[in-house]
Amino acid sequence: MLELYHGEPAANSLKSLLCLKEKGLDFVSHRLNLAEFEQHDPEYVTINPNGQVPTLVHDGNVITESTLINEYLEDVFPKPRLRPEDPVARAHMRYWTKFVDEYFCPALSVLGWQAIIKGMVEHLSEQEFEAKIARIPLKEQQDKWRIAAKQAFPKEQLDDCTRRVEVSVARIEAALSRSPWVAGPDYTLADISCFAMMAGMPVFQPKIMNGENAPRCMDWHARMLARPAVKATLAIP
Amino acid sequence: MLELYHGEPAANSLKSLLCLKEKGLDFVSHRLNLAEFEQHDPEYVTINPNGQVPTLVHDGNVITESTLINEYLEDVFPKPRLRPEDPVARAHMRYWTKFVDEYFCPALSVLGWQAIIKGMVEHLSEQEFEAKIARIPLKEQQDKWRIAAKQAFPKEQLDDCTRRVEVSVARIEAALSRSPWVAGPDYTLADISCFAMMAGMPVFQPKIMNGENAPRCMDWHARMLARPAVKATLAIP
Repeated sequence: MLELYHGEPAANSLKSLLCLKEKGLDFVSHRLNLAEFEQHDPEYVTINPNGQVPTLVHDGNVITESTLINEYLEDVFPKPRLRPEDPVARAHMRYWTKFVDEYFCPALSVLGWQAIIKGMVEHLSEQEFEAKIARIPLKEQQDKWRIAAKQAFPKEQLDDCTRRVEVSVARIEAALSRSPWVAGPDYTLADISCFAMMAGMPVFQPKIMNGENAPRCMDWHARMLARPAVKATLAIP
Repeated sequence: MLELYHGEPAANSLKSLLCLKEKGLDFVSHRLNLAEFEQHDPEYVTINPNGQVPTLVHDGNVITESTLINEYLEDVFPKPRLRPEDPVARAHMRYWTKFVDEYFCPALSVLGWQAIIKGMVEHLSEQEFEAKIARIPLKEQQDKWRIAAKQAFPKEQLDDCTRRVEVSVARIEAALSRSPWVAGPDYTLADISCFAMMAGMPVFQPKIMNGENAPRCMDWHARMLARPAVKATLAIP
């Protein structure tokens, strides 16, 4: 049996939800309400000690980290193929999934946190807020929550994150000038990783991703949205 | 033909050198002198646009990122196996290589830079230094060089990096209490990734990694040093 613990179909949760849907795999969906901090519930933390989503549980085996979940799904359910068979093409695909994890996602995530966390916690008393923070397993995440909720990220950091997101979009735009999909001629996990970041950008970051400065990204985005698996994933409640 | 562009057998260069040696693969070694900034030479940047080491070139195909180089070597030269065949064990192995890349290495690298960069650039005039910086392709790397060379990383950042390195060692210590090797019963790419970070720590970070607080790490470190491939790799000029 496959089970996925996930938040709304966005960001890293979208990454693994979309891979499951593309492969046509049945799975039990455990939707956590991140606005209610359910990813830090002690019960969930016994499954994922980092208190993060998504987590895949396959016949009792726990797999964490969305990129590794997708590699695992590819290892176990290779059809339809979302990872090139040729080792060079495969390494290039992994270059993109790694780029998303190490460069694009951390920068975009700061911008997203800055935009939404205050609204998520403003109804909490100081005591309630500190109780929420105390349940977060990772100190790095505690710090990030505290800064986003109570202060703000420094302008210099926000500017640098915006720059990194712009660099990310420009690199993907360049990749899409060389091939129809991010990592080459075929649709792969690289497209899934990039789309998990970029799905909402034309709406939420229209200055960074639009038809003027990223026409190929916009065209690719439309092709992504037209895929039945993408439609089905974004419709997940 | 296999060619590896690399620095001294340490950190990320050590990671791929060691994988090549464990597999008994012949390769042409292109040793770059990082103290002379050769990784930013225009000629090298045409091969690796990020101006970083290591880079593998296999029959003309360029593969970058040490972790991806090792996955590639495993895809193309699967014997001897350094990646578990079982998909769950494989995902757990990748959890460690990802942890090294995203958590352990960035923290350790700041401490390393703080210790060595000033000595590397103090003989340069301001003009010579700026000329070196101008050749660095990544803005993030330019910033890191500038801070390490001319100012210092803020104490708060250094303290946090020390904490992260301590957390990393504690996690590896815990892993080694569950199994003889980092990711389970077998020697894998996870050991290679961790060792690439920890090879010098008993000497350079003795307060963080020693027989008192990390006895299992020290025992594992000794077992690593006893491996013929490790000996051969550390002897690479």
